[in-house]
Amino acid sequence: MLRSRMKIQSLLGDLTLAEKASLVRGSGFWHTQGIERLGVPRVMVTDGPHGLRKANDADHVGLSDSVPATCFPTAAALASSFDVDLLYRVGEALGRECRAEQVGVLLGPGVNIKRSPLCGRNFEYFSEDPLVAGVLATAMVRGVQSQGVGTSLKHFAANNQETDRLRVSAEVDERTLREIYLPAFERVVTEARPWTVMCAYNKVNGTYASQNRWLLTEVLRDEWGFDGLVVSDWGAVQDRVPALAAGLDLEMPPDLQRSDAQIVGAVEDGTLDESQLDAAVARVLDLVAKATDAGDGSDVDHEAHHALARAAAAECVVLLRNDDHILPLAPPPGSTVAVIGEFARTPRYQGAGSSQVNPTRIETAVDNLTSALESVEFAAGFGLETTADDERLAEEAVELAGRADSVVAFLGLPASHESEGFDRDHMHLPESQTALVARLAAANPRLVVVLANGSAIRLDGWEHHAKAVVETWLTGQAAGGAIADILLGTANPSGRLAETLPLRLEDNPSYLNFPGHSGRVRYGEGVFVGYRGYDALKREVSYPFGHGLSYTTFDYSDLVVEQSGSHADGDLAITVKCTVTNTGRRKGKEVVQLYVGDPEASVPRPERELKGFAKVELEPGESVEVGFTLGGRELSFWSELTHGWALEAGRFDFSVGASSRDLRLTASLEVDAPPVAAPLNEMSTLEEWLADPVGGPLLLATIHAGEEAGAGIAEGGATGGVLADAEMLRVIGNFPLRSLCAFPGMALDHATLDSLLGRLGAQR
Amino acid sequence: MLRSRMKIQSLLGDLTLAEKASLVRGSGFWHTQGIERLGVPRVMVTDGPHGLRKANDADHVGLSDSVPATCFPTAAALASSFDVDLLYRVGEALGRECRAEQVGVLLGPGVNIKRSPLCGRNFEYFSEDPLVAGVLATAMVRGVQSQGVGTSLKHFAANNQETDRLRVSAEVDERTLREIYLPAFERVVTEARPWTVMCAYNKVNGTYASQNRWLLTEVLRDEWGFDGLVVSDWGAVQDRVPALAAGLDLEMPPDLQRSDAQIVGAVEDGTLDESQLDAAVARVLDLVAKATDAGDGSDVDHEAHHALARAAAAECVVLLRNDDHILPLAPPPGSTVAVIGEFARTPRYQGAGSSQVNPTRIETAVDNLTSALESVEFAAGFGLETTADDERLAEEAVELAGRADSVVAFLGLPASHESEGFDRDHMHLPESQTALVARLAAANPRLVVVLANGSAIRLDGWEHHAKAVVETWLTGQAAGGAIADILLGTANPSGRLAETLPLRLEDNPSYLNFPGHSGRVRYGEGVFVGYRGYDALKREVSYPFGHGLSYTTFDYSDLVVEQSGSHADGDLAITVKCTVTNTGRRKGKEVVQLYVGDPEASVPRPERELKGFAKVELEPGESVEVGFTLGGRELSFWSELTHGWALEAGRFDFSVGASSRDLRLTASLEVDAPPVAAPLNEMSTLEEWLADPVGGPLLLATIHAGEEAGAGIAEGGATGGVLADAEMLRVIGNFPLRSLCAFPGMALDHATLDSLLGRLGAQR
Repeated sequence: MLRSRMKIQSLLGDLTLAEKASLVRGSGFWHTQGIERLGVPRVMVTDGPHGLRKANDADHVGLSDSVPATCFPTAAALASSFDVDLLYRVGEALGRECRAEQVGVLLGPGVNIKRSPLCGRNFEYFSEDPLVAGVLATAMVRGVQSQGVGTSLKHFAANNQETDRLRVSAEVDERTLREIYLPAFERVVTEARPWTVMCAYNKVNGTYASQNRWLLTEVLRDEWGFDGLVVSDWGAVQDRVPALAAGLDLEMPPDLQRSDAQIVGAVEDGTLDESQLDAAVARVLDLVAKATDAGDGSDVDHEAHHALARAAAAECVVLLRNDDHILPLAPPPGSTVAVIGEFARTPRYQGAGSSQVNPTRIETAVDNLTSALESVEFAAGFGLETTADDERLAEEAVELAGRADSVVAFLGLPASHESEGFDRDHMHLPESQTALVARLAAANPRLVVVLANGSAIRLDGWEHHAKAVVETWLTGQAAGGAIADILLGTANPSGRLAETLPLRLEDNPSYLNFPGHSGRVRYGEGVFVGYRGYDALKREVSYPFGHGLSYTTFDYSDLVVEQSGSHADGDLAITVKCTVTNTGRRKGKEVVQLYVGDPEASVPRPERELKGFAKVELEPGESVEVGFTLGGRELSFWSELTHGWALEAGRFDFSVGASSRDLRLTASLEVDAPPVAAPLNEMSTLEEWLADPVGGPLLLATIHAGEEAGAGIAEGGATGGVLADAEMLRVIGNFPLRSLCAFPGMALDHATLDSLLGRLGAQR
Repeated sequence: MLRSRMKIQSLLGDLTLAEKASLVRGSGFWHTQGIERLGVPRVMVTDGPHGLRKANDADHVGLSDSVPATCFPTAAALASSFDVDLLYRVGEALGRECRAEQVGVLLGPGVNIKRSPLCGRNFEYFSEDPLVAGVLATAMVRGVQSQGVGTSLKHFAANNQETDRLRVSAEVDERTLREIYLPAFERVVTEARPWTVMCAYNKVNGTYASQNRWLLTEVLRDEWGFDGLVVSDWGAVQDRVPALAAGLDLEMPPDLQRSDAQIVGAVEDGTLDESQLDAAVARVLDLVAKATDAGDGSDVDHEAHHALARAAAAECVVLLRNDDHILPLAPPPGSTVAVIGEFARTPRYQGAGSSQVNPTRIETAVDNLTSALESVEFAAGFGLETTADDERLAEEAVELAGRADSVVAFLGLPASHESEGFDRDHMHLPESQTALVARLAAANPRLVVVLANGSAIRLDGWEHHAKAVVETWLTGQAAGGAIADILLGTANPSGRLAETLPLRLEDNPSYLNFPGHSGRVRYGEGVFVGYRGYDALKREVSYPFGHGLSYTTFDYSDLVVEQSGSHADGDLAITVKCTVTNTGRRKGKEVVQLYVGDPEASVPRPERELKGFAKVELEPGESVEVGFTLGGRELSFWSELTHGWALEAGRFDFSVGASSRDLRLTASLEVDAPPVAAPLNEMSTLEEWLADPVGGPLLLATIHAGEEAGAGIAEGGATGGVLADAEMLRVIGNFPLRSLCAFPGMALDHATLDSLLGRLGAQR
């Protein structure tokens, strides 16, 4: 009924000011406002993003009472799949579940960057790398929206912690925003066109995201062309009228006591231009129009979705180490596999907070292993939270381990350690678990550890006791089956780390500045987030970004890097190709990663940055050529001098490999580009002038002429003056020419400098 | 003639506007402007700070043509003495040399903090710690000014690098300025009253230091009570009128073409209040008055000053390691000591740039050792700069080492590696030197390395070849003699590191943010500078801050920590006492260091901070009680919430020891203080309300009453609502109460919140 812009324009004319004000906020916690007299229906939105959280009582704010829905792997897990197609299929399934429940918009995905391992909501986010987050979230949004259901790309922007999240100001420079914290949003917005974007709670450089016109209008709409609706995170609006003026369309939940009156008042007293309100109302109506046919109440095939959840989970699991090829498990006939750890029967498979799904069913690892193997015995080993029982449980587990062929220990973070709403203050597993590892290994060295945790944990100190370590993240309701598939070799692990596992928390580049205090958090590490920082700091890590083993092996060969077009013409294209071969004896998947480095940049840049990835499946002995194409933007940094992307001519290094620290092949290319530097002016330094091919000779000639004429203010007046004194030049080389006009010995005065600048302009 | 304020006021009335404008800039490079008709003389100022650099040609800008003067140890070396009395005596000598040369103001000392080991001017600065810099510079200023000669405390402020020093903006938060970069200035200004303060070249948070009213007037004059003159660093004035208005009195060197006209114009058109000009003129006249009798042209006893330079240098030398007590050297009769390294005969004893002194004489180590020992042979080993000759030189040195009893290798940074004007980009000694160390050790394991370098170098990779390592910094014209005294045991080393020697440059907390780019340098490590950062990051270091060995040993005992008064009354006094005993067999000096930690602080604070030090000399077996008294300020941090010093009640740890990582005794004390936190308001979070002893019960009662009355907007309306849901509370605990007014289940609305705040105010 609202399908065209014309109809929306006509409706706008029919709405009273009060009705307009009511439309830019919800009617309640989960619905937009309807206008019955004009036939504008309400639209329901629900939390996500890895499953539907539709409250049974639509205006109840509690977290656990929601309709059953498939709990897919969390974003932290899905990111480890590096599988674009998988994300699309999970998105499709999420969209189908929304339609069945007549939900118009699923509130996700979240593409915030994992700045610190401590962020309580890391399980809801994809990666420390914006390319991984952006590409995978794009696929997910496309999948959901292919079902006629909207998404809400969140939390825009720089919401990288839970501590003081509604007040803290993220103090982050523009380059860091442009290179690290915004690109995932930019990619999803420009490539997948999400129906809505959700603004973050926090301030960005002192201004609430909900009132940040630079973010919500200049960057999001004017630069990226976003034409959807901006919704507040729930409770993020602090001052309704400035928020509306900044580009925040829909307030959720509604401040029914105040917002309408404030908006009406602001329009009436001229503080707010009614056209700004109209634009927001039009976007709400457009969303309502898109969502009107969202709910068909059709049934969902929950069994099929569970199967998808299981297949997805298997793609997410990261095999960190596998000494002596202990995995896949192949227990000799008549032997027992010891399954240890409460998590094997009470799995952690999702996180707490607004994303918490009421799953349709739950699989456990112990059940799946028991069905598949001849003999499995279970011991809890520890309680989910530390209890007085732990020593007894540990002793039972050690006893069991001692008489088993091999041991699989399921460890993980207790649910109380990570959640929306707060950050961790350490990266450790509970000591009841880490202490158990050494005891189990002493009883039986054939020890495999399976981890369930939503954010990175510290491995050093205990993992050397295990022959294999399997990181499953929080990987959804079918985790148990998928893990069994991996352990038994029914599935070949193909997940790769979408975040570095550092040796110690203190090694994380944000350590000194997380989570800030006194209302501010300084992003002191700048662009050196995640592997970009560990590399710059030359820190050893437990496992690097991009790492993950397989039950087969892959070889890389025939790297070819070629360029066509030119950056000056805007059609630079660099193609990178290599051949990947499965050199093992099993079918398997490799995540081929392309990293680019710009060693000659004029600003500090990360040693390498991921610029492409592809997951390929190969039969034993099979080869495939993998190709990537990069444009000028992929080689550029954000210049704080020009406030734009800058590609500097020079050598670039292109590496392909199996992780950020397992680069198999590297080739370099000289790339040409127009100069980026600003033109010389009176604040350019002596060194900058002397280094300039035009300005240098001009300056020297000018000073020489000044000396010959005895002009200038050089009281000392020695021929050659400062420029002939290498020692002096070293000391004042970084003086702006203007400052040197007052220096004796330079034979330079302000008039001469002005004329020099004039001649420089003429020669350019 | 100008001695009283009355006379200055009277002179002000006699000056024309043009004359006033001329007085707030120099007449040339090194002199203030005189007014002949009124009998106002010129005053000469010269570079320092570890010696006089009075140009032979008063307006020549070159660095090397200056009158001979005693070159004392540089600040980097003097700081290592930790000797307050020594700094005073060196200051006195400097003052005497100034008087002899009719110099009114010596341009120093520089108390900028060593943020990075790379800063090219680190040799001119004292320490990475503001207490060390402040206390020692205070003594030096007192010494100079005791001779009726002025000083210029520089470079105010946040001038911690040479790269782009005239344009770069130091982006540094107020807490970091207050705790790290300003306290040394504050101490010298308030305790020693330097005649002048020199503003820095750089911008601080976007505003040139020369135009920074907050720095030059609000902090320096209004808060610290500075009543002297602010002079520009040479060339630091970018815009004369705003600089004058901000508090920059004297422009050096003068921009004769522009400044007078700009000032006169600004007064005439009302842009500049003439009273601001008058205030600056009055300060210039006051300086002239103070300096008028400065120059008596009396002779200086250069031999006595050289002897002081030698004694001072011996106090500065830091014995880093001394395996097997190889030092002091005691070669058996008939044996030869091999002295290797060009620096033994061509010493590096000062740095390049404006501080470069033309020494009255130079002692070399090889001459001194040759005079003192039975047999010394010398081999250069390497050239001062890398040359093709290096391999031949190395071979000669190795041959000599092989036939000597012991080897002393003099290594150091070439002069081209460090200077005013540029920063290093690495911490390495030249490879020609480090490679030689291993070869020498292979030829003769009895190897001592003596280092000469103005800023920290990297030791790992080569120092384990040496049995002893002696750090001499750049320690003045008598370095050679002092080093011989230390090596031979005539002097017992008592220097301590005033800066950490990290294992690797990448370990330095400023690494990712030094020296910045694109006109900005982010002080991303905040207060975690130097040892504060290495400790926070739990980084191993080569040698920690405060470290230094002696030829004797010291024991610490009987730590007593007591408090009197209270912070609330402003008379809190904490006395810390311990007994130090010389447990060895030689007379020696210990630098007793007091560190304080505030483990319960509400903001991240350094694990420990130096809050006192004392150098004591003890005969073998002798004991002394060393005491310190701290006030509230010493326990406080700078609160960015209250914009003031904050002492939070709780436990404080007091440790005494021989270095920041060699703490011998620790005691804790509970200190009481009034609450620092801001009162509860509508933006206080649910958690903050619930934790408050008054606000918590009030909030609960209010919500309970609201629920009973069925009031509020709780559509869900379950009794207890959100507050009864622990899981939910965890997720929204950091929501401001105001944001929760729109949430169902809270039974809270804006009116209720307003009334709650009213009742809270009444109960306080």
